[in-house]
Amino acid sequence: MTDRDFALDPRLQNDTRHVASLALCEVLLMDDTRFPWLVLVPRRAGMSEICDLSPDEQALLWREVTLASQALRALAPFDKLNLGALGNIVRQLHVHVVGRREGDAAWPSPVWGSGSASRYDEQARAALLERLRAALDASGP
Amino acid sequence: MTDRDFALDPRLQNDTRHVASLALCEVLLMDDTRFPWLVLVPRRAGMSEICDLSPDEQALLWREVTLASQALRALAPFDKLNLGALGNIVRQLHVHVVGRREGDAAWPSPVWGSGSASRYDEQARAALLERLRAALDASGP
Repeated sequence: MTDRDFALDPRLQNDTRHVASLALCEVLLMDDTRFPWLVLVPRRAGMSEICDLSPDEQALLWREVTLASQALRALAPFDKLNLGALGNIVRQLHVHVVGRREGDAAWPSPVWGSGSASRYDEQARAALLERLRAALDASGP
Repeated sequence: MTDRDFALDPRLQNDTRHVASLALCEVLLMDDTRFPWLVLVPRRAGMSEICDLSPDEQALLWREVTLASQALRALAPFDKLNLGALGNIVRQLHVHVVGRREGDAAWPSPVWGSGSASRYDEQARAALLERLRAALDASGP
């Protein structure tokens, strides 16, 4: 389910690393050690709102959000899941899946717009990406 | 579809006004003139995460979020829809549906934790609630 005109927004490209391609979405890891944080981007060009997707695609999006949440939880226990679809700055349709821990760098405020990212070092990032891919496979259909 | 043990969180009760009861959710209007802002609360006791709902209930939740978004858009045109399920402060499961306008009081930051609510006066609130109920009926199944 890929739109041939789909291209990832340059800002998302810059801020994240690619984890996996699900049926509808690209799964990206936010390159920020402060929060366990995935971003799901449906591979559909020119969409900015969830209601731009067909009802079937919307259902698939939420299933993939659940899958990503489970993978994140398997890796890094958290106290509260934060889901958000904002797009005030990056208009390309994307959904944030963030594991929040009491006392984390933004707690209890939202992560969006909170301070500056602290990037993973290369080794830690590679290990995390591998574990995320395994967790997504394990919790997949 | 009501859980007999369900009771609305006191903070949500204080910050909002009741709009309508859908099949799964209570629809509430955030009493804040700065943003067109609805909150959907599934009538299920003791739930804090969307994945606590059954798959059927999750699907219904997202249908009702779409319904609420359409009702909001019919009333107050906006540039970008913001959806969020955070719950860092109020743990009772709830989903925010917020119409954002470029240049609004928090733009382009999230609305959560941004400044203080500016309450509707009684007449404006009553009129808005009536229009929201009509819009929800019109876009209903």
